[in-house]
Amino acid sequence: MSPSADRLAVVLLSGGLDSATVLAEAVSRGFVCHTLAVDYGQRHRAELDAAMRVSRELGAVSHKVVQVDLRAIGGSALTDDIEVPVVPGAGIPVTYVPARNTLMLSLALGYAEVLDARDLFIGVNAVDYSGYPDCRPAFISAFESLAALATKVGVEGGRFEIHTPLIDLKKSEIVRRGTELGVDYALTVSCYQADDQGRACGRCESCRLRRQGFIDAGLPDPTRYV
Amino acid sequence: MSPSADRLAVVLLSGGLDSATVLAEAVSRGFVCHTLAVDYGQRHRAELDAAMRVSRELGAVSHKVVQVDLRAIGGSALTDDIEVPVVPGAGIPVTYVPARNTLMLSLALGYAEVLDARDLFIGVNAVDYSGYPDCRPAFISAFESLAALATKVGVEGGRFEIHTPLIDLKKSEIVRRGTELGVDYALTVSCYQADDQGRACGRCESCRLRRQGFIDAGLPDPTRYV
Repeated sequence: MSPSADRLAVVLLSGGLDSATVLAEAVSRGFVCHTLAVDYGQRHRAELDAAMRVSRELGAVSHKVVQVDLRAIGGSALTDDIEVPVVPGAGIPVTYVPARNTLMLSLALGYAEVLDARDLFIGVNAVDYSGYPDCRPAFISAFESLAALATKVGVEGGRFEIHTPLIDLKKSEIVRRGTELGVDYALTVSCYQADDQGRACGRCESCRLRRQGFIDAGLPDPTRYV
Repeated sequence: MSPSADRLAVVLLSGGLDSATVLAEAVSRGFVCHTLAVDYGQRHRAELDAAMRVSRELGAVSHKVVQVDLRAIGGSALTDDIEVPVVPGAGIPVTYVPARNTLMLSLALGYAEVLDARDLFIGVNAVDYSGYPDCRPAFISAFESLAALATKVGVEGGRFEIHTPLIDLKKSEIVRRGTELGVDYALTVSCYQADDQGRACGRCESCRLRRQGFIDAGLPDPTRYV
């Protein structure tokens, strides 16, 4: 293990508001951050472009993009030709991507093994979270247990820690924390159907939660809308 | 849920001897099998071609390939420019792909959710297994627990079962079982560095284990060597 291995971290970055805040938090805690974006066949590229800009602006030391073609297996309004709803319904929405966080954490785990890092950061949130099952604390704990069994590091007695600094925060608290840490939210894209320039629709559930977060925080909303 | 959902299965297929035997086993147990191959930037395409042929020959109802570019994160002799060893060393070998089975099961899980299947098959083996941590029974159990927490199905009270019919078998027993079930092993490619026509090197650890399996089973080895 290299001397500074305990301070390296892999930070999952989507280009949205939450993961940008997570990166700022990880950097503020002194981690040397390697950001990882997963290109799973999203509807628009603006999100991936945003991830790259956010990584650089917030001081990550490297940024990687792993391509996973989830369109081959289908099943979500975010990767298929299913219409993104403007009014939230009951239960788990059609924007749920099957096993997405399991997949993203698997990739982050593999990358952490390669880098000899033990710390992973992910911007899941169990408050304003749209009802996705893989955003809950119990899921994160189960993944930590799995990671210990799945890896060379685990066999050798090491442990991975999955940091979820946003898990108990309301959207307004996330926005406040990120603003304190100097995140420029104009760089981020949260909209499920942003246009090529990264401008938000202002109508989908993700836009609605984000806009309300700025209102509740009493902060100006720098989001660029179409 | 569709009436026959309890009999659909997702079978991970690599194109090698083990997963071909798993597919034959799943079919023999009456599952309607959807095979899934993961193209993670392997050294050769012969393995993926073999997976497609094996899927068709053994009666799967569909075959999908998901592309995941693991070369972006590196770390294995199977995806990087690290030389594949001919003599096995102590411990976990350089052919270990970081978090590979975690990733493959994540993809199979996502696909199972899309198909409304509850059964996953994977050809892991804890006997002649080269020392990879993510081939052990404890890893599989941990993934089942994770799957229950990670998914819409789990939230609604459902469970996924991960079938590992080879986990306790020696290579010779796998070969014998597959032969009983009619698997044509000439279609399969196990070699870590097969050529474009799928011919095996005969020298890497995977070749060595496979060849010994046929010898111990007292069965002719149909493998095409270079």
